[in-house]
Amino acid sequence: MKNTTLCYIERDGAYLMLHRTKKQNDLNEGKWIGVGGKFEANESPEECLLREVREETGLTLTDYRLRGIVTFVSERWETEYMFLYTASGFTGTLTDCDEGVLKWVPIGEVENLPLWEGDRIFLRLLAQNAPQFSLKLCYDAQDRLISAQLNGKSCGV
Amino acid sequence: MKNTTLCYIERDGAYLMLHRTKKQNDLNEGKWIGVGGKFEANESPEECLLREVREETGLTLTDYRLRGIVTFVSERWETEYMFLYTASGFTGTLTDCDEGVLKWVPIGEVENLPLWEGDRIFLRLLAQNAPQFSLKLCYDAQDRLISAQLNGKSCGV
Repeated sequence: MKNTTLCYIERDGAYLMLHRTKKQNDLNEGKWIGVGGKFEANESPEECLLREVREETGLTLTDYRLRGIVTFVSERWETEYMFLYTASGFTGTLTDCDEGVLKWVPIGEVENLPLWEGDRIFLRLLAQNAPQFSLKLCYDAQDRLISAQLNGKSCGV
Repeated sequence: MKNTTLCYIERDGAYLMLHRTKKQNDLNEGKWIGVGGKFEANESPEECLLREVREETGLTLTDYRLRGIVTFVSERWETEYMFLYTASGFTGTLTDCDEGVLKWVPIGEVENLPLWEGDRIFLRLLAQNAPQFSLKLCYDAQDRLISAQLNGKSCGV
């Protein structure tokens, strides 16, 4: 079991996306995701968020919001509890990321990128400005989404 | 590191409180708390919540709300991420709990019970109907609260 954060930083209608291409044994290899990562010892969710964003982008968040909790269950990977944030305020200058390539992608075009299937569900919830949610996503050993539950109720998989 | 849920079930201006008196090696021994417990494998937060409430009280929650995330850091216990809920709807009949004694306590009297010091902070936030929060509580080896941060900012310890 692990706890993680993921953040979609927004600027001028675009999300800062990370194309995961550089990390060894990366469960996200080849996928486009937001920025974030695993909790370090004793970190609160927002401490993890701020550190990961700083490490991966050079930016310091000044305005962010917890949008939901995503429970990932997989036949292949350990269970992950992800604190999902969006951010609309930051300071600093974008730097290179050693886990992949960072790119501002217009929000309407994000769905055309190679994404995890379940990510499309929570990206849609973010776009709809859904109230804070709990989303459970179950993947099989081939990383195919086999079930999705939103706030405890099955949602279209 | 562990993830847990805690729930204050409300009925007629009282919270269902659990006086922890029955469990061996209980970090909560002698304290009054809500009901809840540790995530089992692959559970989402709400699955853990519903199971724990059912196991400890016999009740099935029909209306509940995530009020905050509490990060507990201690020199004595492993770090805990607690999903804090309140509930106002349930079905079923209250049963005995094998972890302690259950009692409906008028909300205004809860503060007079032996509580963890940090619990007083989040109970106050619940009473104030605070928007969803992240609270980090740090305890020393004698279980004394040494710091508290609300949404990343120090709050009066």
